[in-house]
Amino acid sequence: MKTVPERLTALRAAMAQAGCDAYIMPSSDPHSSEYAPQHYTAWEYFSGFSCENANLIVTAEEAALWVDGRFFGAADAALAGTGVASMHMGVKGVPTVSQWLSERMTSGKVLGYCAETMPVKQMRELAKLCQMQGAKLEDLPLVDKVWTENRPALPATPAWILDTAYAGKSASQKLEILRGKLSEQNCTAMLVTKLDSVAWLLNLRAADVESTPYALAFCYVDMEHAVVFMDTSRLSAEASQKLAEAGVETAEYMGMADYLAAGKKSQNVLVDPASLNASLNNALCENSAYTVTEGIDPIAMLKAVKNETELSCTRKAHLVDGAAMVRFQMELEARLAAGETLRETDIDTILHKYRSSNEKFITESFSTIAAWGSNAAMMHYAPKVGADAQLKCQGYLLVDSGATYYDGTTDITRTYRLGSLTEEEKLAYTRVLRCHIDIAMAVWHEGATGGELDMLARRPMWRHMLDYRCGTGHGVSHVGAVHEGPQSLRPHNNVVFVPGMVITDEPGIYEEGHMGIRIENELVCVEAGESEYGKFLRFEPLTYVPIDLSCVLTEELTREERAWINDYHAQVLEKLSPLLNEKEIQWLRTKCAAI
Amino acid sequence: MKTVPERLTALRAAMAQAGCDAYIMPSSDPHSSEYAPQHYTAWEYFSGFSCENANLIVTAEEAALWVDGRFFGAADAALAGTGVASMHMGVKGVPTVSQWLSERMTSGKVLGYCAETMPVKQMRELAKLCQMQGAKLEDLPLVDKVWTENRPALPATPAWILDTAYAGKSASQKLEILRGKLSEQNCTAMLVTKLDSVAWLLNLRAADVESTPYALAFCYVDMEHAVVFMDTSRLSAEASQKLAEAGVETAEYMGMADYLAAGKKSQNVLVDPASLNASLNNALCENSAYTVTEGIDPIAMLKAVKNETELSCTRKAHLVDGAAMVRFQMELEARLAAGETLRETDIDTILHKYRSSNEKFITESFSTIAAWGSNAAMMHYAPKVGADAQLKCQGYLLVDSGATYYDGTTDITRTYRLGSLTEEEKLAYTRVLRCHIDIAMAVWHEGATGGELDMLARRPMWRHMLDYRCGTGHGVSHVGAVHEGPQSLRPHNNVVFVPGMVITDEPGIYEEGHMGIRIENELVCVEAGESEYGKFLRFEPLTYVPIDLSCVLTEELTREERAWINDYHAQVLEKLSPLLNEKEIQWLRTKCAAI
Repeated sequence: MKTVPERLTALRAAMAQAGCDAYIMPSSDPHSSEYAPQHYTAWEYFSGFSCENANLIVTAEEAALWVDGRFFGAADAALAGTGVASMHMGVKGVPTVSQWLSERMTSGKVLGYCAETMPVKQMRELAKLCQMQGAKLEDLPLVDKVWTENRPALPATPAWILDTAYAGKSASQKLEILRGKLSEQNCTAMLVTKLDSVAWLLNLRAADVESTPYALAFCYVDMEHAVVFMDTSRLSAEASQKLAEAGVETAEYMGMADYLAAGKKSQNVLVDPASLNASLNNALCENSAYTVTEGIDPIAMLKAVKNETELSCTRKAHLVDGAAMVRFQMELEARLAAGETLRETDIDTILHKYRSSNEKFITESFSTIAAWGSNAAMMHYAPKVGADAQLKCQGYLLVDSGATYYDGTTDITRTYRLGSLTEEEKLAYTRVLRCHIDIAMAVWHEGATGGELDMLARRPMWRHMLDYRCGTGHGVSHVGAVHEGPQSLRPHNNVVFVPGMVITDEPGIYEEGHMGIRIENELVCVEAGESEYGKFLRFEPLTYVPIDLSCVLTEELTREERAWINDYHAQVLEKLSPLLNEKEIQWLRTKCAAI
Repeated sequence: MKTVPERLTALRAAMAQAGCDAYIMPSSDPHSSEYAPQHYTAWEYFSGFSCENANLIVTAEEAALWVDGRFFGAADAALAGTGVASMHMGVKGVPTVSQWLSERMTSGKVLGYCAETMPVKQMRELAKLCQMQGAKLEDLPLVDKVWTENRPALPATPAWILDTAYAGKSASQKLEILRGKLSEQNCTAMLVTKLDSVAWLLNLRAADVESTPYALAFCYVDMEHAVVFMDTSRLSAEASQKLAEAGVETAEYMGMADYLAAGKKSQNVLVDPASLNASLNNALCENSAYTVTEGIDPIAMLKAVKNETELSCTRKAHLVDGAAMVRFQMELEARLAAGETLRETDIDTILHKYRSSNEKFITESFSTIAAWGSNAAMMHYAPKVGADAQLKCQGYLLVDSGATYYDGTTDITRTYRLGSLTEEEKLAYTRVLRCHIDIAMAVWHEGATGGELDMLARRPMWRHMLDYRCGTGHGVSHVGAVHEGPQSLRPHNNVVFVPGMVITDEPGIYEEGHMGIRIENELVCVEAGESEYGKFLRFEPLTYVPIDLSCVLTEELTREERAWINDYHAQVLEKLSPLLNEKEIQWLRTKCAAI
């Protein structure tokens, strides 16, 4: 079964056999991860398109994949001719998953799903929808039945413990903090279900998901016990010992439901419905020893606010990464100037060479986006060997990349001028830069939310009725996933920024069929000072890499914006120079010249 | 009982007699009005300080008045020596009403209040607080007992009906719209309790509250009936006839509770707890014929989005008001130049002369704030004859004023340079102007909230760790109250702006003991256009009055800001000229010269 139509035919046969009229596959794993291990990527297997934040629904006649703004262009291209419709989420006139299902799930019809990979929240919405329609929602393991051939196994990468020298706090310290938070909410236990949260709580790392150094694991915590459920054979002796020292028991990944079923002591268990799967929810609800309290995973906020150790390590990681970016750009320029033929996929090769040469390098923090010309208009374009564009000496090259080091995780985008640019192209770049600077320069009275700050980034764009169909920025985990909540720069995000939160600042312009421009730094929220009006906060850059100013229409910038650029570049030069040789410093000096 | 201490002594005696340990008086009337009729202003009578959005609490030993940022300075001055503490709401270290009561309302203590003037929402919070403390909350009419001498009677101003030519829709049309909204919420009836809402629904006007052309009235609406409860002797024959034509029955103000008690038909009654008083809440809950649904008063949104007639009338009102402002400024300049002695209270006299000369003038929309020098640092300073400052030829004069005409209600602030200014004073003015322009120039993707837009106004101020302790702007009613919700420009306001909403744009700088600067226009939300990214909105000025540019440090402005000023002034000249004589036009031309 090599083609999408073949796979869909097989799924439809299994659906018919099971009396299932529609089958829904959210882009999830048992932990509601943003990036799921290959083993769980059924929506990709049956649609042929790789993405996150998606839902695939298959009926006897139809198949449709809902994707968000980052993937519109790429999904349209990839799904053409497969029999799977590309559904643009949030676009007027495009039905939502609920609307689409409401039209089809008429009385008596059966909607199938897999409880293990279904977030309980979504399951409840589907149950409500089915109830209102007189349809039935059934837990049917059809993916396991159909997707057997060549299915990737569950990941089994070596698991290890991030040293306190990098994490700032040991697992036993973090468990104490968590127990305090549980007590505040009158809870006595918690099911830690999100991989990020398990990783933070136990300082546990592995490489189960590409570019994300986490281990597939759950953790059960009560006032006396902490049990991690994972493939224990993957733990090194050292890791096992560290867990034992922190008072953490180990059990097998698949054993969690049974563990919950066997619980006898009365517990008030906190679960976060945003990352609890429907299967574990059933196990909890069926044991009368438990009172279930649904709430926000308290670890989300604990890990979002970085401690001093994490911050000082992260600053080091960004300088190492910045030096790699400088070397990359020098090599790129030199090879293009020498007339060498380079393709988009070569970018990652060069970047990897410089990043991985650092002894603390662990992995790229996501698949490098290197997009030339109109390819960059596809927000999450990933070039593939053999199908990638050759870099020509005109227009823009967008490079969005990053790495995880033992010191921290980076995420940076630069857009490079490869040759002649039109005035319009320069204007677009200048506008993106202004949006970027508006966030970077912001000072605000404490209490402002991500939604309110996001306004500053979009303002210069909106004035010209332009916009970008994504957030302005996202949190970044420490030695972890490149996307982290709860804070974000995005309309209506209501999380209040506090010192220690890390965020990306990455506005962009994406013109289909023409170009894509994005400029991204990571920033950390810090105190700006205090006045009679109260406490003020601001952002401080973590990323120090020159921004290509040869694409800027200087006269479009305000005096304050120019001052920010010059100050930033002076810092780039000062901070990166100790990591560079004379020739590199010389090169950097020209890139950081004041405008 | 002329002094505050005498009044407090009398109240404390009544409290002791009733076994009451603390008595709370919110700044409210039976409708939770922002500006209450004099009859209900107990918090002012017992504290000696006039303000809104306040709470006065009296115990045997203490008395404390909570005021918001607008009143900090004035309250401190007025309350000194009265035995009433001035409590600054929202300031760190100052206990909230709840915190203050929690410390004092220990087990067994009695907290008294008056149900008729207590918003049900606040009553519930107090009940919860008392329950947690083991204290008792009791409805005790102590104000009526103590405040008898010289107490203002209930207002009885003539009530009239605003013509459809100004209102755009008749009462019967509006009742149909409201019934439609009730049906959407599965409600069959509504208690319209907010004076603004009654006024809008029935096009009913009077002059019960100074500067606010409303009548003290409730309205009961179900699918067959609409009954207005008010002093019916105040209705002219014409007004009575118009109400009858619209199918509105009339009943006496005090009869509403009895009417509710007598209701036999089963009704699902919508009430808005934000404006329902505790007394009517009891009447509703005691009749089993009613199911009570609590929700947001749907009239709030209906009246906030102005119809075409309202908008075109409002535009006319603002030009008439703008011409009056021009004449006022000319007279002010001429008289000061002639060396005449002018005092702050003279400002209102001059303004009134020009505004009231228009045949459509009804009333000032609020007490004119004319504040010279450091007086302007008190946000809601109201000059009093005999205690007002003389205008000297230096520093700033802040004038915040407005009027209600049959065509609409205006609210405008200008800050005038009366003589020499320091660089610091000019810089402050320039910053306020930048904040103002940031809102005036904003273009945004539809869906942005008031909280998000507010960020744009504060941005230039926050950069220098400055702030103003109030919202950036508020809605304005049509021929009505000068403050109107639900939209506002204020941190965390989550109302989405839609075309037709009117808002003030009035950032300021207030330096205690030194100066106050505010620049205010009214704006209306309009469509900016549509692009591939969706629909965009912007604001359009309603106010056309020159802004004093002799206080501006031009070099601090961006090119875009300068362009906005020049464009605005060109429009001021164009729009006001038809209402002015040659000499006035000549004067205006110099004020509107491009920078």
